[in-house]
Amino acid sequence: MTVYLDHAATSPLRPEARDAWLAASDVVGNASSIHGGGQAARRVLEEAREALAAVLDCDPIEVVFTSGGTESVNLALKGLWWGRDAATNAIVLPDGEHHATLDTVGWLTAHEGAAVVPVGLDAVGRIRLDVFARALPGAALATALVANNEVGTVNDAAGLAAAARDAGIPLHLDAVAALGHVPVSFRAWQGTSALSVSAHKIGGPVGVGALVVGRASHPVALLHGGGQQRGLRSGTQDIAGAAAFAAAAVAAEGERTAESARLAALRDRLVVAVREAVPAVQLLGDPDHRLPGNAHLLFPGASGETLLFLLDQADISVSTGSACQAGVAEPSHVVLALGRSEADARSVLRVTLGRTSTDADVDALVAALPAAYERALASASR
Amino acid sequence: MTVYLDHAATSPLRPEARDAWLAASDVVGNASSIHGGGQAARRVLEEAREALAAVLDCDPIEVVFTSGGTESVNLALKGLWWGRDAATNAIVLPDGEHHATLDTVGWLTAHEGAAVVPVGLDAVGRIRLDVFARALPGAALATALVANNEVGTVNDAAGLAAAARDAGIPLHLDAVAALGHVPVSFRAWQGTSALSVSAHKIGGPVGVGALVVGRASHPVALLHGGGQQRGLRSGTQDIAGAAAFAAAAVAAEGERTAESARLAALRDRLVVAVREAVPAVQLLGDPDHRLPGNAHLLFPGASGETLLFLLDQADISVSTGSACQAGVAEPSHVVLALGRSEADARSVLRVTLGRTSTDADVDALVAALPAAYERALASASR
Repeated sequence: MTVYLDHAATSPLRPEARDAWLAASDVVGNASSIHGGGQAARRVLEEAREALAAVLDCDPIEVVFTSGGTESVNLALKGLWWGRDAATNAIVLPDGEHHATLDTVGWLTAHEGAAVVPVGLDAVGRIRLDVFARALPGAALATALVANNEVGTVNDAAGLAAAARDAGIPLHLDAVAALGHVPVSFRAWQGTSALSVSAHKIGGPVGVGALVVGRASHPVALLHGGGQQRGLRSGTQDIAGAAAFAAAAVAAEGERTAESARLAALRDRLVVAVREAVPAVQLLGDPDHRLPGNAHLLFPGASGETLLFLLDQADISVSTGSACQAGVAEPSHVVLALGRSEADARSVLRVTLGRTSTDADVDALVAALPAAYERALASASR
Repeated sequence: MTVYLDHAATSPLRPEARDAWLAASDVVGNASSIHGGGQAARRVLEEAREALAAVLDCDPIEVVFTSGGTESVNLALKGLWWGRDAATNAIVLPDGEHHATLDTVGWLTAHEGAAVVPVGLDAVGRIRLDVFARALPGAALATALVANNEVGTVNDAAGLAAAARDAGIPLHLDAVAALGHVPVSFRAWQGTSALSVSAHKIGGPVGVGALVVGRASHPVALLHGGGQQRGLRSGTQDIAGAAAFAAAAVAAEGERTAESARLAALRDRLVVAVREAVPAVQLLGDPDHRLPGNAHLLFPGASGETLLFLLDQADISVSTGSACQAGVAEPSHVVLALGRSEADARSVLRVTLGRTSTDADVDALVAALPAAYERALASASR
């Protein structure tokens, strides 16, 4: 039985989401069709939109379903860029953002003439509100993670939104890693133009996400066609995916308070036990403002990739960084953004707990780590 | 029991696709993760890619999974546009294309400085090869439907591809309506840079599609991020969707010859019977080069929308045009492209048969049409 400690990469499908997908798949009709079948499909879709809107604390009409977090981020950033006041070309970009954001802004820079205004992180990976606020004036748009997907640091989203509102700058918040783990409220974060979320991080299916687009925001569409979803996202609407996402979000939100406490306690026990077993280990990220299931561990002198392989041989699944980049042995840009060395940025493991995680999982990891670290150190000194 | 005659809008999920989706959903892991779970997910994904490539007659590496036909078309057209030789800005655009193509080219025109070189259709909706070839020289790219989603006319895709190859112009073919009904071969259509397909039109899930991108083609990505799929389409890969799409494609291709013959015979019987019941009816589109399940019927003097509502009251589902536009009472741009009047373009019904269609469905439609036509005529003369 695999010890799965990589919930931040993807979390197993919840039974509620699977059931909702299957039930919606039985509805035969395109939600854009006028006939009875089409209208039945539209009802499933709009009920899902309403349920998700309640979880995200926004109006249903503000929910634009997408194919996932990457599309949401691309739509937000490119859409706000193309819809900007043409007199400005600056994008406020904190360090340590997800690659969907980094690479989208990179394309806007290389291809569309955007200029980046960087915002450094503090040593635990947090965006400082005063630094962020100083970067805003005159920008076309700003973006920020609600919670960092690698080191698990949770930002002050309300403070970031207030700063953007005060400066009158459109703000995109990436809540993909945050949803289901910390409170997410579009309404409370007034000043946010667009907010990205993804289904598969909270037990919904892969290939489904949403972008909350405030009523006053008018990003340019990325996918043109039939004009579905306020014209912001054309394409036949995936009612089964939407229903499954909504079911997962409702389930995750319903258990969030209790589950966050359980996971934080489990994670804290894990960190204490790992430190006892491997005293050299350091916990990166913010000890206080942190995703409950996240333990981001630095193993000085060892290769994170080697550790990952050794643990995988013991049937324990962890990550060295975001899954998107896991295939490439690059130093973590997030760890670098904490002011750490390149060596450190290659010596990290991201351990992320979730709905299915147990004490036994933690025990298995703690048991396997000392020998793995020793072997990884030996392999590094060769 | 609903008589569902709108398979071109969306076709019911095949049991094979549902089973494949469920099986793949049990694999816990992000296909970009290095660990065992990630690699298991990647195997499911690559097997799906290979199976779909076999159906589309291309190399697996040429298959880029997307969120559906609309994304595929947007990626192809915008990607080829951004990747073009900057000395040219012309897009060869036949009349009567799908709205995903029309609206994408519209955006490229309004926003990116593209210019359209229109290509008229003949009276049955076909692209004439000589007219197409004359439009190509000096263009940045060309696009064409393999089969028209409204009137069902099937183009000479091999001829279009040869013309593009001879002219050295990148060609996108939209095979969304064609797949599963007529032969689709990327290899045989040498000269094609990119080819769009969608899962839900052939009994796969909604929200899944693919763009075949030839090895020599280098479209610019539309979704930036983790760099998945040759960097052409970032985002966590939907292995359940890919597996379900592949299962549907394999099933559809396996039964295509027999099923096309069955549907063409059923469709021909439908057309004859409708003409007997309502002598004024005309069949639009190409009588010879035609999707087997498509009957596109003109009811002179009646509103197609009124007919649709009346048939829906009898629990018979048909369409007035493509589902994407079905919510809007506009004349069909495809019917206009056949040289018909605006009145005619508002008086059409698209009847599309598929896997679940039976003689009883045809009988029900034929029985309901005379009274519906009479009422629609009466309502029009009021």
